[in-house]
Amino acid sequence: MTANKGLKIAVIGGGSSYTPELVEGFILHHKELPIRELWLVDIEPGLRKLNIVGNLAKRMVEESGLPIEVHLTTDRREAIAGADFVSTQMRVGMLDARARDESIPLKYDVIGQETTGPGGMMKALRTIPVILDVCRDIEELAPNAWLLNFTNPAGMVTEAVLKYSNVKSIGLCNAPIGLIKQVSSKYSVAPDRVYAEFVGLNHLHWITRIDVEGESKLDEMLADTTAYGAKNVPAREWNPEFLNSLHALPSYYLKYFYMNDAMLEEQLESFKKGGNRAEVVKRVEEELFEIYSNVELKEKPKQLEQRGGAFYSEAAVNLMRSLYNGANDIQTLNVANNGILDFLPDDASIEVNCVVTKNGPLPLPLTTVPPMAKGLIHAVKTYEQLAIEAAVTGSRELAIQALAHHPLVPSVEVAIQMLDEMLEANKEYLPSFFTKETTPAAQ
Amino acid sequence: MTANKGLKIAVIGGGSSYTPELVEGFILHHKELPIRELWLVDIEPGLRKLNIVGNLAKRMVEESGLPIEVHLTTDRREAIAGADFVSTQMRVGMLDARARDESIPLKYDVIGQETTGPGGMMKALRTIPVILDVCRDIEELAPNAWLLNFTNPAGMVTEAVLKYSNVKSIGLCNAPIGLIKQVSSKYSVAPDRVYAEFVGLNHLHWITRIDVEGESKLDEMLADTTAYGAKNVPAREWNPEFLNSLHALPSYYLKYFYMNDAMLEEQLESFKKGGNRAEVVKRVEEELFEIYSNVELKEKPKQLEQRGGAFYSEAAVNLMRSLYNGANDIQTLNVANNGILDFLPDDASIEVNCVVTKNGPLPLPLTTVPPMAKGLIHAVKTYEQLAIEAAVTGSRELAIQALAHHPLVPSVEVAIQMLDEMLEANKEYLPSFFTKETTPAAQ
Amino acid sequence: MTANKGLKIAVIGGGSSYTPELVEGFILHHKELPIRELWLVDIEPGLRKLNIVGNLAKRMVEESGLPIEVHLTTDRREAIAGADFVSTQMRVGMLDARARDESIPLKYDVIGQETTGPGGMMKALRTIPVILDVCRDIEELAPNAWLLNFTNPAGMVTEAVLKYSNVKSIGLCNAPIGLIKQVSSKYSVAPDRVYAEFVGLNHLHWITRIDVEGESKLDEMLADTTAYGAKNVPAREWNPEFLNSLHALPSYYLKYFYMNDAMLEEQLESFKKGGNRAEVVKRVEEELFEIYSNVELKEKPKQLEQRGGAFYSEAAVNLMRSLYNGANDIQTLNVANNGILDFLPDDASIEVNCVVTKNGPLPLPLTTVPPMAKGLIHAVKTYEQLAIEAAVTGSRELAIQALAHHPLVPSVEVAIQMLDEMLEANKEYLPSFFTKETTPAAQ
Amino acid sequence: MTANKGLKIAVIGGGSSYTPELVEGFILHHKELPIRELWLVDIEPGLRKLNIVGNLAKRMVEESGLPIEVHLTTDRREAIAGADFVSTQMRVGMLDARARDESIPLKYDVIGQETTGPGGMMKALRTIPVILDVCRDIEELAPNAWLLNFTNPAGMVTEAVLKYSNVKSIGLCNAPIGLIKQVSSKYSVAPDRVYAEFVGLNHLHWITRIDVEGESKLDEMLADTTAYGAKNVPAREWNPEFLNSLHALPSYYLKYFYMNDAMLEEQLESFKKGGNRAEVVKRVEEELFEIYSNVELKEKPKQLEQRGGAFYSEAAVNLMRSLYNGANDIQTLNVANNGILDFLPDDASIEVNCVVTKNGPLPLPLTTVPPMAKGLIHAVKTYEQLAIEAAVTGSRELAIQALAHHPLVPSVEVAIQMLDEMLEANKEYLPSFFTKETTPAAQ
Repeated sequence: MTANKGLKIAVIGGGSSYTPELVEGFILHHKELPIRELWLVDIEPGLRKLNIVGNLAKRMVEESGLPIEVHLTTDRREAIAGADFVSTQMRVGMLDARARDESIPLKYDVIGQETTGPGGMMKALRTIPVILDVCRDIEELAPNAWLLNFTNPAGMVTEAVLKYSNVKSIGLCNAPIGLIKQVSSKYSVAPDRVYAEFVGLNHLHWITRIDVEGESKLDEMLADTTAYGAKNVPAREWNPEFLNSLHALPSYYLKYFYMNDAMLEEQLESFKKGGNRAEVVKRVEEELFEIYSNVELKEKPKQLEQRGGAFYSEAAVNLMRSLYNGANDIQTLNVANNGILDFLPDDASIEVNCVVTKNGPLPLPLTTVPPMAKGLIHAVKTYEQLAIEAAVTGSRELAIQALAHHPLVPSVEVAIQMLDEMLEANKEYLPSFFTKETTPAAQ
Repeated sequence: MTANKGLKIAVIGGGSSYTPELVEGFILHHKELPIRELWLVDIEPGLRKLNIVGNLAKRMVEESGLPIEVHLTTDRREAIAGADFVSTQMRVGMLDARARDESIPLKYDVIGQETTGPGGMMKALRTIPVILDVCRDIEELAPNAWLLNFTNPAGMVTEAVLKYSNVKSIGLCNAPIGLIKQVSSKYSVAPDRVYAEFVGLNHLHWITRIDVEGESKLDEMLADTTAYGAKNVPAREWNPEFLNSLHALPSYYLKYFYMNDAMLEEQLESFKKGGNRAEVVKRVEEELFEIYSNVELKEKPKQLEQRGGAFYSEAAVNLMRSLYNGANDIQTLNVANNGILDFLPDDASIEVNCVVTKNGPLPLPLTTVPPMAKGLIHAVKTYEQLAIEAAVTGSRELAIQALAHHPLVPSVEVAIQMLDEMLEANKEYLPSFFTKETTPAAQ
Repeated sequence: MTANKGLKIAVIGGGSSYTPELVEGFILHHKELPIRELWLVDIEPGLRKLNIVGNLAKRMVEESGLPIEVHLTTDRREAIAGADFVSTQMRVGMLDARARDESIPLKYDVIGQETTGPGGMMKALRTIPVILDVCRDIEELAPNAWLLNFTNPAGMVTEAVLKYSNVKSIGLCNAPIGLIKQVSSKYSVAPDRVYAEFVGLNHLHWITRIDVEGESKLDEMLADTTAYGAKNVPAREWNPEFLNSLHALPSYYLKYFYMNDAMLEEQLESFKKGGNRAEVVKRVEEELFEIYSNVELKEKPKQLEQRGGAFYSEAAVNLMRSLYNGANDIQTLNVANNGILDFLPDDASIEVNCVVTKNGPLPLPLTTVPPMAKGLIHAVKTYEQLAIEAAVTGSRELAIQALAHHPLVPSVEVAIQMLDEMLEANKEYLPSFFTKETTPAAQ
Repeated sequence: MTANKGLKIAVIGGGSSYTPELVEGFILHHKELPIRELWLVDIEPGLRKLNIVGNLAKRMVEESGLPIEVHLTTDRREAIAGADFVSTQMRVGMLDARARDESIPLKYDVIGQETTGPGGMMKALRTIPVILDVCRDIEELAPNAWLLNFTNPAGMVTEAVLKYSNVKSIGLCNAPIGLIKQVSSKYSVAPDRVYAEFVGLNHLHWITRIDVEGESKLDEMLADTTAYGAKNVPAREWNPEFLNSLHALPSYYLKYFYMNDAMLEEQLESFKKGGNRAEVVKRVEEELFEIYSNVELKEKPKQLEQRGGAFYSEAAVNLMRSLYNGANDIQTLNVANNGILDFLPDDASIEVNCVVTKNGPLPLPLTTVPPMAKGLIHAVKTYEQLAIEAAVTGSRELAIQALAHHPLVPSVEVAIQMLDEMLEANKEYLPSFFTKETTPAAQ
């Protein structure tokens, strides 16, 4: 890295409402992460937001007195050229597409969610080709850069990058850091005195070990059937008998699988009342940009914390710092499996504790894999692999196979009907599905 | 084997209505399989049927003029002592238990089937302890005997025997031989000119290769969306687009997964009309025993063919012949995985083509594993492993985990409620669940 | 295959003294292997021998009255075009090169042998590029042909073809069939009543099971410390205590490893007396061609049997027959590992029992792998892989690494000196080592 | 751990001349490793040395003013009871046995070395049963203690403990820390700015990555053909062409394999001159104990540094500190393989970088495994596994197999003769080989 002259960072989707958090992190940790250039990139239709949030970023930096240059641009290649880190937080199709991802499945009595289930697949089909385009630019213009991917479905997007580019890439989620914070707060210890072992995939993990100061607190955490949660997933309580015999704390996203009937019912009712999650987020975002526009504002506003996605910025800055300094600390990341889960291919992305060295993350072997979890992990990974191939090839056949093999889809017939409606609704974002002859790749 | 004095065969559950088929097979192939003693064993409550079918067996043998002694007994140990082959075709709880296996899940809008889904699990919980008792006898009284297991769920029962006994055991199903016969008949060639490669588990296989005289007919078979079926699974047509992009012919039992909604609806309607499969079979059986009672009857009656379960006898006799003679021919059997499916444990039972040597079956490596199938295979095997542990330990906790992780069960809550009802209904057959302290084994 | 019009077979190295055996085999088994065209190919310098042996072949066929056309040619492409089987039995550099392979290592007190040790590596470096050229022709002109490779070192040559071509290829050795014959003769049973399990690599196998009529004779075979041998490897007796505790019968080629000191001494003495194996073979060959020239001779002459390499023809014809007819019988072949030896890569060639189907050989899982053998197998395979890469790339660096890691080479210094002398001596056959810039491939 | 009242440490073989180093380390790092009781244990014949070195230890502690109690005892059980750490640095048979280990092989023209080759095997046969006895005590009296094993051959001893006890055990060697120190000194950076990746086994590793401040210095280290060495292995220079194409820095112990001829010659000459390494060490030790006896001495004497085995104490104290504090730092340790080297069994001990957590070391996945190294690693591990089984069972058969499969032993005959002489010479330390019926275990 170009340490002596300071680091260059490119944020793809820089017009996001999250950006002020990231900027705050860069300011707080400038000593260990000496950024000199921060490039916020967005596409034309996002220019208004980019300017609002970008100007806030400039005011925040100015207030800090640090020598960071903030650049706003729609020229992605200029932003990427020579970057040390590229981070992505884009949303192809914006919140309208998310609203469709969440509502169409509900018509078929299937969970509507933007990362889990058919909605997540549509998001993957839209997003993967765009990310791979970004990777082409990185390969050419910043071959030594690290790509930090926050874009959901982060596991699938990361796996697509691992398979179809030469970019050094890591997928990130705020859930693991959130769990650490919850435990840290519950036991009133510093986060670095908490050790948790995560097993599984992005948004599909089980936590098999929770140590506080070296002492196991897993059983106590399992006794609290509401402990581990987040704003964006409804807070249903776990069945205590089930949790206890599982011997592992499941991700809150696993409620869509383990409580499928109740979660679906809740979504259907909530939908009837007019609100899906996309709509809520849309309103919150509008309010945020209103606040950001205030030229007097020179810091991250408190209201951003209600946005959900807590700790995203912290996770990103932590990872950049450890990569830059070779901290050899342990972080939970999405990386290539390489034998950690011995039943998955080496090139499958998994969510796993890693030691972050200067040359990248090294995944730590798992001390326990819950026997119960293996089948579901493999079933979801099978779907993910088929969906990734579908995204890359634009193959309707593979998209059918992906959806038909998703554990939340009740039948092939439903898969095909739902797919047809979703493809049609996303037509403008799926050129490869609609404009060329397709050939399947997953043989 | 005691070749010079002829073979001894013990049939556990010898009072079954299938027995005349087996006897016919023994008579037809006596030259290559020189049986001298055939012991039909059953339990006290089955004594009436044992006598009826046993006497028919005696008349059939007498008619053949072969030197086979037929013994009827309720003394299992006497029958097993010194046997060369032990075959099992028992039904713990008889058809009444089957009726409950098929009806209770329907109350929860879950597939009711005696091998697939919760019904299959209950059958496994009742059956595995009894089979392991049989194994204790074989270990002691006929340690060199081969155990041929037809008892369903054959995959789970075989895996339990592999894990918890030293008996040489092979699981058998009539589905593979049935497919061979269908292809052989369609193309008017001898069955030994058909080669089919089976991938997966018992009642959960995909056929990835169908060669007739060395030429691939897979695409033709896939084009016929009703080709591969059997009497005991409703004949719904496959979606042609799905079948074509799957590039493999799925077992008809896979309809319960791939067409879950439609199959469930059909079961619910059929149940409302008063008929589940157990009831139908019960009526057929009663008629059969009526016929068997006729002392003039000296051969297998034609009506037996309508019973379903075609080719069971052929499969059994084929396997015994090949083991006895070291035929080195290829048969599709349920055996220990040992690396064939690289994502499953070595001791998982799988359904796979094997070369049958004098020292037992050697599984053949698979030339193709459909990427689509891996997740579902692993999900069902995960459930199977948990259910086997539950059966062996009598652990309610493990039974909850097994059912909660079955792909056809919609939630943990449904799993627990359904389990409670099913355990209660099977109380008399589940002593280990109701009479002792249980400790989980699958950690 | 073009069954209706008869088969076309191309024999690369058709001028070999072995050819009459092959022709005899084709004549004897014409019914199951209906050959219509037999093409014997050789290079210009071998034209004299090709004509002699080719004319004998023509006389043999004429005598048989069968409709086989025998073609003699130096046009390899014409011979290969449209062939059903291509068999190779070439010797790049002819017997003079072999003499050097066997004598140069002796100067460094290292075993001089044409397949095991440094001599085998030189043979591989000369041969692999030529075989890959043949493969290019097959890919273009006979893409459905089976390549049967007898050319030594058969394991390495086969692995090179598996890795660097798309040709369907099988490696063959006469040792396994030789063992079967020895056991069959010792116990006076037909060869098909003998079952032996081979574990390891070509010329580096251990036999872990020898059943005669289904009964184990391994201990009896181990008790006879001279039982398993062949003309081309000196007949030293095994240490009985060692053999007994090994629980497996080692290949006679393993004497070069297990009795390295004595075998080397024997070679050194024999060399002093003026005879290495190449010289002996040279004399025998000259006599054979004398005999073949006799226009009255219309059958394979008895003297050929003294040539060594017994059963080569039988092995080849057996394999072609089983492939052509889909015999599903078991033969010991050199094929891709694909998980059979779990510590070797999937694309490593191994020697293993296979079921020969119409679509090619399927390797059988091993029932035992002697723990003692694993290290040596892996050490030799490591050398083989490096040598193959060296042959393909012409990399001196890789050749050094290969030789330095061969278990029979005492040090890096000896490896480098010996390599330099051997490369120089083989200059005319190693264009890629001498004419271009090389880059290593095995990283 | 009993943190509040301070730690208890037992040093088995506490009379060793190394002990003052260890004591110095405990004193220097008392803050992070609050030891309250230090128990030095030795056997009766070592009592004189134990008293000398123990009294020095007491004076050193007194001088430091720290509240550490030093206990000297021959009662191993008392020392172990309730210990937090047990460390072993014993030498069964003392330096006389070492002298035999080093001299007997030389009679057969085989390397005589106390850890590599036949000498190492004899040391393992003597030592493993004693260590397993220690483990029985730990299992009973200090089940939560960590066993830190320095006793050579450390890899084999560690593997024996992993396989045949329930003790939490880690093997340690000073070579990896020595390399770090050499690099740190060469580049004038702190040791924690050096990152090296070790691949292989104890005394059989290759270093594939050497980063200084995140920048690769491997090529520079490879260019220096004498860089990586130690006092106890003769300092022969590597062949530069070989080193360069190996792309990894080999352990100096690998010279016994890669330069076998020259190293043997050197040993033979040195032996003729009357000095083997054991004799040298003996003299050094006598001088050391002379110095230790001086009651004025209250610190580790400078002369100890010439003893060889530098950094042993540092390695031990580092490991205890990290385990006690959960430092999550990276250390190179001997632990169970568990899939890190995918061609070795899970329970094989390997030398590998680990993250040291409060719950023990987690091995880090390897980023590179030199293809050249695989065969030799597997060959030596095969020997090690056979030798461990021989040590545990007292089986002569397994000892023959172990030695016959060691890469440095030229033949089965030499193996058997050498073994017979070595067993006889070690009779008093090998009760299980001489007093009972043995049965082989490695089948």
